[in-house]
Amino acid sequence: MIRYPDLIRAHAARTPDKIATIFEGRSFTWAEFNRRLHAMANALATLGVAPGDRIAYLGLNSHWLVEMYYVPSMIGAISVPVNHRLSLDEIAATLDDCTPTVLIVDRHFGSLAQPLLDRCPSVDHILYADWDLPGPGLPPETQHYDMLLAIAGPAAGDAFDDRASASDDTMFLFYTSGTTGRPKGVMLSHTNAFANSAGSGAVYGYRADDMLLLTGPLFHMATGGRVNTGVYYGSTMVLQARFEVVEMMELVETHRITAMTLVPTMLRMVLDHPAFPGFDISSLRCLTYGAAPMPLALMERAVEAIPGVTFVQGYGMTETAPAVAILPAMDHVPGTPGYAKLGSVGRPVPYADVRIVDENDNVLPAGEAGEVVTRGPHVMNGYWNRPEETAHAMRGGFYHTGDAGYLDEDGYLFLVGRTKEMIITGGENVYPIETENALSSHPAVAQAAVFGMPDPTWGETVHAAVALHGGREATVEDLIAHCRERIAHYKAPRAITLWVGALPLSPTNKIDKMAIRARILEDTGV
Amino acid sequence: MIRYPDLIRAHAARTPDKIATIFEGRSFTWAEFNRRLHAMANALATLGVAPGDRIAYLGLNSHWLVEMYYVPSMIGAISVPVNHRLSLDEIAATLDDCTPTVLIVDRHFGSLAQPLLDRCPSVDHILYADWDLPGPGLPPETQHYDMLLAIAGPAAGDAFDDRASASDDTMFLFYTSGTTGRPKGVMLSHTNAFANSAGSGAVYGYRADDMLLLTGPLFHMATGGRVNTGVYYGSTMVLQARFEVVEMMELVETHRITAMTLVPTMLRMVLDHPAFPGFDISSLRCLTYGAAPMPLALMERAVEAIPGVTFVQGYGMTETAPAVAILPAMDHVPGTPGYAKLGSVGRPVPYADVRIVDENDNVLPAGEAGEVVTRGPHVMNGYWNRPEETAHAMRGGFYHTGDAGYLDEDGYLFLVGRTKEMIITGGENVYPIETENALSSHPAVAQAAVFGMPDPTWGETVHAAVALHGGREATVEDLIAHCRERIAHYKAPRAITLWVGALPLSPTNKIDKMAIRARILEDTGV
Repeated sequence: MIRYPDLIRAHAARTPDKIATIFEGRSFTWAEFNRRLHAMANALATLGVAPGDRIAYLGLNSHWLVEMYYVPSMIGAISVPVNHRLSLDEIAATLDDCTPTVLIVDRHFGSLAQPLLDRCPSVDHILYADWDLPGPGLPPETQHYDMLLAIAGPAAGDAFDDRASASDDTMFLFYTSGTTGRPKGVMLSHTNAFANSAGSGAVYGYRADDMLLLTGPLFHMATGGRVNTGVYYGSTMVLQARFEVVEMMELVETHRITAMTLVPTMLRMVLDHPAFPGFDISSLRCLTYGAAPMPLALMERAVEAIPGVTFVQGYGMTETAPAVAILPAMDHVPGTPGYAKLGSVGRPVPYADVRIVDENDNVLPAGEAGEVVTRGPHVMNGYWNRPEETAHAMRGGFYHTGDAGYLDEDGYLFLVGRTKEMIITGGENVYPIETENALSSHPAVAQAAVFGMPDPTWGETVHAAVALHGGREATVEDLIAHCRERIAHYKAPRAITLWVGALPLSPTNKIDKMAIRARILEDTGV
Repeated sequence: MIRYPDLIRAHAARTPDKIATIFEGRSFTWAEFNRRLHAMANALATLGVAPGDRIAYLGLNSHWLVEMYYVPSMIGAISVPVNHRLSLDEIAATLDDCTPTVLIVDRHFGSLAQPLLDRCPSVDHILYADWDLPGPGLPPETQHYDMLLAIAGPAAGDAFDDRASASDDTMFLFYTSGTTGRPKGVMLSHTNAFANSAGSGAVYGYRADDMLLLTGPLFHMATGGRVNTGVYYGSTMVLQARFEVVEMMELVETHRITAMTLVPTMLRMVLDHPAFPGFDISSLRCLTYGAAPMPLALMERAVEAIPGVTFVQGYGMTETAPAVAILPAMDHVPGTPGYAKLGSVGRPVPYADVRIVDENDNVLPAGEAGEVVTRGPHVMNGYWNRPEETAHAMRGGFYHTGDAGYLDEDGYLFLVGRTKEMIITGGENVYPIETENALSSHPAVAQAAVFGMPDPTWGETVHAAVALHGGREATVEDLIAHCRERIAHYKAPRAITLWVGALPLSPTNKIDKMAIRARILEDTGV
């Protein structure tokens, strides 16, 4: 039987005086962390929280939020770390979807408590988790987390095993910020989290003596997976409320941080910061980064600036808790056989069945691109209250990631885009990124966006929008010929729109293909 | 959801042409291994095997037995690898306990099939798994494993997911050879096996590219755990029907074996063998050994004979699937901080809550000896059909190992004996091994055995039987004084019987304390 609270009790027994969490100057040992969890589980049970209930938490990173990852599972309830970057309407929609009985807020989101309470009738109790007492902006019935805990503490038993969730029971709902439709609640079990911690932690190279810095948002599994792994190993977890470069460097220096997760952009911000040379961050030994490849020049700069640091790439998603494939530290070392695979996201973790399939779920051979699907103990229980979307995502027993990619002969996974972006022209599949890479290799091309356009004969045709470098010229025919020299003819654009000025960007600073495509369709009157 | 057949299908998809099993010259790839499993699951389902049924296997190590570890779980049934070293009566008692519907035998145990069939009415089908056809000594209805498989093969689907066992369901019954009473069937789940494979494999230092030699009996979890881990990693497993020194060295040389489990006695047999220098066993990189400490001189001899080989010690038992604590390779390297811990069995694996408790289950502090208890995802579902013995073994939620030991300040576990051997004298606990060690440090003492004797005042008193070295002399008073200088007075013997000649040995070559104690009780007329 897999139960995260059991893992925590093990560390409390084994290393009671080792620090479990550090947040804004306050630290708790593993014994204290365990006691707080038990007291809070007792408090929630006293409030009437029953097995299966949801407890939502709306706040920045803190030890309170880490505690609330696990407390609900001790009484069979489910923890819901809410995405605080959403608008009030979106947050209310999330709560309407999971109907929590308890909502916990911190001072940053205190002002949302009353509006959310007014709109979400499921919420019976508002708790406040922060350094100060609940202020006047909060609903009058708001109770302070630590007060509840202090009252419940002496009454807390050592265990709630009879009511606890276990193994395949859902312990978390993490909402995905899907690009289409309302966010979906991903149901993750103890088994999902354990597979990631026990099975991928070793591949990442995590250790019990790591000092972990958690700076990404805890409502997201990229950081959530690190919390679960930190708890599995009994490491010390330092929490930053939210990422900020200088404070992060201070935390690394002060706490001699050894391991953390950074996206390449964050790493560049650190290395570029004028204050960087003044900090001693030599304690860092392992930097984990997300699915985006690490630019080689950036990696070399980092290795020079932080001698001995190793890089590990993880690829995954909320639905897989999260690791699916890992490119280990060894494959980042020049001269090793794996170094040629730096453009990949690594090999599947040992317990993950990863396959590439076509639109009809036929398995494709090595080297052929299709949709990445996966099965194993890391795959979610499903989407909360969405049996149809669950069945669709899990067809054939495999979770369909929506990512397009291929496995090479050595089993390394290369991503080529999203399946939703895939163009089918005359029965052939084209992934826009291949065509975009071909176009971008032309010296006159500054930006290129490739997408499908409706066509009565071919179903779709490959269409590109291209912005040229100032002072450079190229004709549509030049560019198409350039592509045909580099990729299959059917992958080359059939038509190109030369864009005046830069291509429009989405709010997340990606090229907004939807807007470009809509504008071209409008202009051509299709 | 954790399902071993899913892990196998992942390897069949990922590395279809890699070898999974090698036995007596016949090898199967992971794709073939997976196909055989599916065909056999289909065959058993056709025979009428239903979820929850038991399938017993009585035979030496082979690929057939490895297959039958997992086939039953694909249709929700339970695999029972039977201890073939037992007498016919004991084997019949095992089958009476688990009432299998199918019994599989090989040529070594074919003659037992009819007598077992006569005595065990639950058995509906006898299968024969070996290179030859079922001979005249077998019941006429015996079917050949590979025939059934060949017939069922074409009809076998790709999956039996709807009927398969999962996560916490029992997939194995391993019978313990308990020292008292009838053997008990230990119910192990996918979760138990997965925790050991994913969570302890990395601590052992196992790798996907290991060539594993399985030479210990597969009816025992010491080897069974290696099979599960080999399957988890998708390694190649070479099977030896049963341990034999020269054939083992041939297998190591032929298959370039990298990892195997050896008890110290087996390692000594290898190094001492006159043919040893003629074999090239330089491929070995990782030797795992059981709970008995590795004699330093033996380790040094082995490192000299097999350059670069590392040692890893595992401590565990059937009920914990099996790893509880591991002394990693690093702690076997002279000059490392862990080297001082060579007398321990290492530290608990990350997921195992290990505590030391007194007779009333109160947790004892570091350094104090008591019973080793453990909780976590590695702990069995219970004993088959023995709710009372299960409840007793699992009291307080912890599995009680029956081993006596202590955890030192660094969290290393040291074993001092069996709790059943513990003497309680005047309310104080005495572990015989401490007194035996004190006696053995006297230059005249050749052998010492310590046990409790009934006493109306103290409950028990500490009694020793001592054999002296030929030509040496010591009085009982000398020996008691010698002990009192070294250990607490209450741990020193209150009485000593000077034995004439060597102390009697049990069939397993241990000093037979029961016989000694019985003889002394008889002589003194108590």
